[in-house]
Amino acid sequence: MSAYSIGVDLGGTNLRVAAIDADGQILDKVSVRAVFDDGPQKVVTDIVDVIHQVRSRVGLPDLRGVGMGVPGFIDMDAGVVLGSANLPGFQDFPVRDEMQKGLGTPIILENDANAAALGEMWMGAGKNVKDLILLTLGTGIGGGIVSKGKVLHGFTGMAGEFGHMTVFPDGNPCGCGNCGCLEKHASATAIAAMGRMMHFKGEVSAKRVYELAVAGNDRAILVFESMGRALGIAIASLINIFNFPLYLLTGGPLPAWDLFAPKMFEEVNRRSFTFCKTGTRIEKAALGADAGLYGAAYLPFQHERSHRAIAK
Amino acid sequence: MSAYSIGVDLGGTNLRVAAIDADGQILDKVSVRAVFDDGPQKVVTDIVDVIHQVRSRVGLPDLRGVGMGVPGFIDMDAGVVLGSANLPGFQDFPVRDEMQKGLGTPIILENDANAAALGEMWMGAGKNVKDLILLTLGTGIGGGIVSKGKVLHGFTGMAGEFGHMTVFPDGNPCGCGNCGCLEKHASATAIAAMGRMMHFKGEVSAKRVYELAVAGNDRAILVFESMGRALGIAIASLINIFNFPLYLLTGGPLPAWDLFAPKMFEEVNRRSFTFCKTGTRIEKAALGADAGLYGAAYLPFQHERSHRAIAK
Repeated sequence: MSAYSIGVDLGGTNLRVAAIDADGQILDKVSVRAVFDDGPQKVVTDIVDVIHQVRSRVGLPDLRGVGMGVPGFIDMDAGVVLGSANLPGFQDFPVRDEMQKGLGTPIILENDANAAALGEMWMGAGKNVKDLILLTLGTGIGGGIVSKGKVLHGFTGMAGEFGHMTVFPDGNPCGCGNCGCLEKHASATAIAAMGRMMHFKGEVSAKRVYELAVAGNDRAILVFESMGRALGIAIASLINIFNFPLYLLTGGPLPAWDLFAPKMFEEVNRRSFTFCKTGTRIEKAALGADAGLYGAAYLPFQHERSHRAIAK
Repeated sequence: MSAYSIGVDLGGTNLRVAAIDADGQILDKVSVRAVFDDGPQKVVTDIVDVIHQVRSRVGLPDLRGVGMGVPGFIDMDAGVVLGSANLPGFQDFPVRDEMQKGLGTPIILENDANAAALGEMWMGAGKNVKDLILLTLGTGIGGGIVSKGKVLHGFTGMAGEFGHMTVFPDGNPCGCGNCGCLEKHASATAIAAMGRMMHFKGEVSAKRVYELAVAGNDRAILVFESMGRALGIAIASLINIFNFPLYLLTGGPLPAWDLFAPKMFEEVNRRSFTFCKTGTRIEKAALGADAGLYGAAYLPFQHERSHRAIAK
């Protein structure tokens, strides 16, 4: 009988839970609205309830643990969210221990972008490698680093802030206090902002700029070329720094790949001899929004394995 | 009786060998000219001879192995130098196996900048951490990444090419084909080149620009401020990417620290909220030219330890 684990993806809008077996097969999957109005304790109760439902539907005895991806900085040892713009009330709340009370199974917290990177390594575009970088393009740009099969966290859990790499030292101002951050030149928000600079009529979203570009609008195409250049400058530096075999992109702007990727590759070819001399790949991530669920579910299996290795 | 290992630092000019015990005490140290005119086999004979001399002077039976740092890309598994501008004749030469024939002890090759980073972690400015980045400022800019106590190599041994991070997308042209590489704005070579742009009289070396700056020459000071800005832009991105606790600088331009560091820190403060919010340190490396010897000597000890951990 197959062992399985449960992956949780707690976002600012949705709570998603999946039971996944050791071979990466999804046994059950649920998505409900996340409600934060009644405080974090109530959110934990909701999560535990959903997990119980999933467990009873799966009906297998061998649950190895629960992994949970959350959008924020995490103290891994304490199982606490140190800071999150999207999870009101969760700062310093002992979310792991509270969940454990209701579940009685090991629970591992992880940053959502790190979980997504891990998920892509386990069951997605990175199945054949142990070292990869994932860039998540959304409102901002985040990401995760997987090195030797494990998430690289940094000493305060803040590694992977690719969105705040400087790509243009005198570029667009960023809320972080810097100018020319990657996410001010290549996120969905940046696409919309650059679209507004182009004075398109009506409300200008990233989607609208995309539709205009697809329809052949020169200025909209320029926006995506500019985005591609910024991405290329950043990814070239990442390749020169890490020499990893695989760099993945995910997020809302991915359908615009054909619009931004040519300029991205042009920059990378010019700016990274490591890219030119090796079989380094830059690709679309494969699991989309499920990457975080896979990665979260992988955490208990990984924990178990490294535990076994130490025990030997 | 104390176990010891031997570190070798083979450069384009000098061959340096040191016997170092497990506590990091140097037992013996030799520096001779490296002669490449008679081919790599002769160089290996010279290295083996020097190592035999050192062994007999040290007189202890418990030699754990030899680590050797070389300036070039290395195939760690094969023990072969894949490419090096400074070691004529060594490309694809089986240097590790040839040395082993003459020594009969485990030999581990490593890139010299990686060895230096490891040495700083073992006995230098990084003694209290397991994660650090070292930037070596010289003719170019190289460096090493130590993650969880071990060198991060990348999949083809090319990680740590910090000198080719883009800091100014339309900056100074670089031999690699890029524009605005860090090393074209912050290496010793770049300091001299920027000095020549300032039309100082006579021959303009990095040292001369330094002397002028120390004497209060405004244009020479500007050169170091520009260097500091470039370093700050790159290091801010590294901090945002890695969230490591320590970033070290080493190399010829280090005496100019007071001239370039203020602008470097100004840029890092502005461009990295991770730096501002955590106790991240940017410091001078402590071991100077000996860092590579320490790191090379550490390799056999490290190899032994990870071997023991697996055997358990």
